[in-house]
Amino acid sequence: MPCGGQGRCGRCAVIVQDGAGIRRRSTLRLSADDLAAGYVLACQTVVEGDALVTIPVQEKIERRLVTDKTAAAVTLPFFYDPLQHQSVRLFPLAIEPPSVVDQTDDWSRLKRALASARLPLLSRWDASQDNWMQLKQAVDSSPEMSDLSADLPTLRRLGTTLREHNWSVTAVVEMDTWDRPTGSARLVDLLPPGQVGHLWGAAVDIGTTTVSLYLADLLTGEVVAKAAEYNGQIKRGEDVISRIIYASKNNGLAELQSLVAATINELLEQATRRANISPSEIYKMTVAGNSTMIHLLLGLPPGSIRLEPFVTAINHPAPVRAGELGIDIHPQASVDCLPGVASYVGADISAGVVGSQMCSSSALTLFLDVGTNGEMVLGDCDWLISCACSAGPAFEGAGVQDGMRATLGAIEEVWINSETCEPTYRVIPNPKLEAQGLPTPPRGICGSGLISLLSEMFITGVIDKAGNPNFDLGSPRIRQGEHGPEYVIVWGDQSEHGRDIVITKVDIDNLIRAKGAIYAGFTVLAQSVGIDLHMVERVLIGGSFGQYINIEKAIQIGLLPDLPWEKFHFLGNTALHGALLALLNREYRQQVGEAAQKMTYLELSADNTFYEAFTSALFLPHTNLAQFPSVAEVLADREAQT
Amino acid sequence: MPCGGQGRCGRCAVIVQDGAGIRRRSTLRLSADDLAAGYVLACQTVVEGDALVTIPVQEKIERRLVTDKTAAAVTLPFFYDPLQHQSVRLFPLAIEPPSVVDQTDDWSRLKRALASARLPLLSRWDASQDNWMQLKQAVDSSPEMSDLSADLPTLRRLGTTLREHNWSVTAVVEMDTWDRPTGSARLVDLLPPGQVGHLWGAAVDIGTTTVSLYLADLLTGEVVAKAAEYNGQIKRGEDVISRIIYASKNNGLAELQSLVAATINELLEQATRRANISPSEIYKMTVAGNSTMIHLLLGLPPGSIRLEPFVTAINHPAPVRAGELGIDIHPQASVDCLPGVASYVGADISAGVVGSQMCSSSALTLFLDVGTNGEMVLGDCDWLISCACSAGPAFEGAGVQDGMRATLGAIEEVWINSETCEPTYRVIPNPKLEAQGLPTPPRGICGSGLISLLSEMFITGVIDKAGNPNFDLGSPRIRQGEHGPEYVIVWGDQSEHGRDIVITKVDIDNLIRAKGAIYAGFTVLAQSVGIDLHMVERVLIGGSFGQYINIEKAIQIGLLPDLPWEKFHFLGNTALHGALLALLNREYRQQVGEAAQKMTYLELSADNTFYEAFTSALFLPHTNLAQFPSVAEVLADREAQT
Repeated sequence: MPCGGQGRCGRCAVIVQDGAGIRRRSTLRLSADDLAAGYVLACQTVVEGDALVTIPVQEKIERRLVTDKTAAAVTLPFFYDPLQHQSVRLFPLAIEPPSVVDQTDDWSRLKRALASARLPLLSRWDASQDNWMQLKQAVDSSPEMSDLSADLPTLRRLGTTLREHNWSVTAVVEMDTWDRPTGSARLVDLLPPGQVGHLWGAAVDIGTTTVSLYLADLLTGEVVAKAAEYNGQIKRGEDVISRIIYASKNNGLAELQSLVAATINELLEQATRRANISPSEIYKMTVAGNSTMIHLLLGLPPGSIRLEPFVTAINHPAPVRAGELGIDIHPQASVDCLPGVASYVGADISAGVVGSQMCSSSALTLFLDVGTNGEMVLGDCDWLISCACSAGPAFEGAGVQDGMRATLGAIEEVWINSETCEPTYRVIPNPKLEAQGLPTPPRGICGSGLISLLSEMFITGVIDKAGNPNFDLGSPRIRQGEHGPEYVIVWGDQSEHGRDIVITKVDIDNLIRAKGAIYAGFTVLAQSVGIDLHMVERVLIGGSFGQYINIEKAIQIGLLPDLPWEKFHFLGNTALHGALLALLNREYRQQVGEAAQKMTYLELSADNTFYEAFTSALFLPHTNLAQFPSVAEVLADREAQT
Repeated sequence: MPCGGQGRCGRCAVIVQDGAGIRRRSTLRLSADDLAAGYVLACQTVVEGDALVTIPVQEKIERRLVTDKTAAAVTLPFFYDPLQHQSVRLFPLAIEPPSVVDQTDDWSRLKRALASARLPLLSRWDASQDNWMQLKQAVDSSPEMSDLSADLPTLRRLGTTLREHNWSVTAVVEMDTWDRPTGSARLVDLLPPGQVGHLWGAAVDIGTTTVSLYLADLLTGEVVAKAAEYNGQIKRGEDVISRIIYASKNNGLAELQSLVAATINELLEQATRRANISPSEIYKMTVAGNSTMIHLLLGLPPGSIRLEPFVTAINHPAPVRAGELGIDIHPQASVDCLPGVASYVGADISAGVVGSQMCSSSALTLFLDVGTNGEMVLGDCDWLISCACSAGPAFEGAGVQDGMRATLGAIEEVWINSETCEPTYRVIPNPKLEAQGLPTPPRGICGSGLISLLSEMFITGVIDKAGNPNFDLGSPRIRQGEHGPEYVIVWGDQSEHGRDIVITKVDIDNLIRAKGAIYAGFTVLAQSVGIDLHMVERVLIGGSFGQYINIEKAIQIGLLPDLPWEKFHFLGNTALHGALLALLNREYRQQVGEAAQKMTYLELSADNTFYEAFTSALFLPHTNLAQFPSVAEVLADREAQT
């Protein structure tokens, strides 16, 4: 087994049906549920009497360990009722045509029809008695149409559309927006009378690396398609800082704006093709993203974000029209960029806080979104405090010699045998090779692989707590390389490219600095409100990075605080989920605004506190081992075994 | 004298200082003021004893008669107080720059500064104690800035402008618009800190033929420049109907839209050059015009205006941005198109009603705007009823063989000697020829000349009440022409082009139909509310056409109702004046909206009433002479003299 019988890889799990004669030495790798189900680790179990043991199929174990960490499916935390929750509605209208005795202008005629027949049509609505009452109530309390507005392009189509469809049309009306909570309502479009079955919306998260999109039916609240693509801006810089610099160049801002719009349009194209609709049928969009991404989408110069005192142009922009941004949904549709808190705590975090439901519980919660930057929020339903630490892109594979993104051929988990120093690893498989029964040769190591590797090297003593390789172990894998000391994970004859896959001392230092910055962030956040990190009741981890990491190993290197595993929850793209909730429900949209509003932002560069915490975190797992009792226990275990 | 001693031309006016021995036979030509000043008409006065008579310089008489009829200068009916009346304001701001301890975003920082220092700077404001109190009051009651908004282009300039000017700027804020009377306020622009002395606005009237513009200082209420030009759309059709047809052609609407925008831009160029400013410094525009002109400016298809049941797309459009229309003032400035009532009673009329102050008095008033169409309103401060009659462009010189616009070389007044049938006329002089002491040879006849000519021909018996020339008079000027009977006003050897200038029976019929349509309009309006036309206390005449016509002669042909002359007031371009009032004062802007709202529109094509009234009016002055007692008196006078 990979870990050489140290109770760390979990691969030797077996089920003990009658456990009277069994003594468990270590259960670190097992959750409470596992224990209740009778799981034990074979290597950590002493048989002292009779016992009935079942050895499960190996794949079942692997799948268990992996699927536990993937994102939850798209479920809404409320029962969707478009009349109550949705700001964009459909109204089927049969308008009395004009005559010489009633020469009311087209616009007033439409408003009159809207005001008198305010029952919005919902084709999928079950008009049972109860629903009907609810419907009536919603209609009675809906805003007045007397101050209905329309953009000039909508007005320009008005007369022709009304006459083309013989005064029978379906009006698409935006009832309110966050900045105009009591209206006025706005006519967005007029559709032919038949087109009443669907009303589409899109939620978008613009990541520095990846842009993701949900296409949702605003009548049912259902997500009908998802799509994700690399952000087209990548070719003008990998991180936010290089994008900000590029934006300051001649025409750079306009180019970056149209690049991200083109990426969103590509996603819209993919998602609508799958749903068999046209992007122009989408009437509402919400957008999450870090502050730089939101600035670039809106075409706002992001220069001040990069320079002290690190200020945004605007944290909470009002909705704009899709046409103003070159986004190919209906040109008069609102694009609502969600609010950010500060230059480095953007709309992705306030949306994430709502998407993760962090702020709807009184449990003390730590919310963490690790991408290129590490952004984190501490708090509960009453208060929130946030900070951002420039962790750098090491955990995304950048700045690491054999680092790579989590794609085919990436090593995503590593185990090291403490006796032989020989590694075992799992590679993200290439389906084509897999279909032929062939293994996928590794190309490099992705973020979760790096965490796993660093942890294994530390726990097995391949490196010490400062990250220095131990040449005394006499393994050929520990050697002096071109760039200093290094550890060989894969020999060239087994790698895809024929070169050795290694991790160098320089890589290790980069990774330690990255994890140190993040842990220092936690420390300073907790200190600033006088809380001990062990009081945290939940750790919610958002972002694609968080989806695949191994908690145990992340704790062992001191990236995550040492808390019981069941307190950690991987939520996937919380920013996108928050954008979806804001798209579907004006109450959640308001929550995002309130979260951004009440979130205190701690500027880490303001004094030395952060720097001191950072320095203390530049060891594995930490200068102060007392902060990591579970790691201390594992280390003690190892001592005892050798 | 021109009229041959019939007491009609007024040219023989003299002043009788001691009038004991004098008997006046007719005083028709003289006003009450004239009589009080001692004026008599020499030809109508019998000397029965001693009298001291002064003969005034002839030019003085002419000027008197002419200047009475010209437009009043631009005076406001209220004392302009920008704090109270103006929706666009300047706020000088000294904003605290951001720092690491206050990382508020630029937008919130600006809002905070606006909210705490809400004293708008008015460089010309005399800060005496009284004014100061008034100022404070205005500030205390000014809307909150918390829901300040800004267009995306304004936001895009925000950060750069603030830093460029070291956080000292002057904000241009639109506090409200008619459709958002309680705000929210909108940031339109940020200016350098010094630029606080002026704030510019423009009022425009788009006529089918002529576009006129006032440039006003919004801090003082002063009109600093005027400009007028032919509407560039003329090359695509002279009247509204031909423009509507052109708009329905491929790209026709867009072409007409840009043609009128180009005309307005040309006027802006002229006016701002005179004021030595840039058009982009103009931050507000109000626009009057008939419904077709407003539709074409906004790019709204006007097709339904022309076709039964004659409906507009919208009567009261919300303000749009100048940039949306291609108007070269500040692109984020509001362009506020004033409200119309119906397809043929447009914003020019509702603005005219306010510009003429018709609706601010309890006196029963008839308001008349004769251009290509005749639009008229009857009412007072409590009620208004309006109609439009397609009088046709005869009085603008179109459809009349020798008709022309009122420019150099146009005959603008005619007198005919009843004994000889010989005409005398006044020509709009060419200043170049005048400077050399030379007379201006006539080229044709303009509208006021046609009214004058028709009246003279009728009163002197050259034509009968049906408009047929009287060949029995034996004058060589009454002859059978190529197109039937005609009267020669100018022989070819005295005209500019060497051809005879004539009026034909066909021309006369056209003119009678035109005046008949207008008079029938009055009749039907009055009938519809059960009022006799003689009860009208004021007749307010707007439009450039109305500026130069002779009331007496207009009554004699039955174009205007037979009321005492002092009841008639020529107000010039009331639509432009109304647009100016709406530009300067939000209360007047509201009045225009209310006037449009409460004005009943009478569709003349709805039944036969109009047609019957029209048929009765196809005589000089009317079938029923009892409706024109003063004309009956003149005719009786003439009978008595011959």
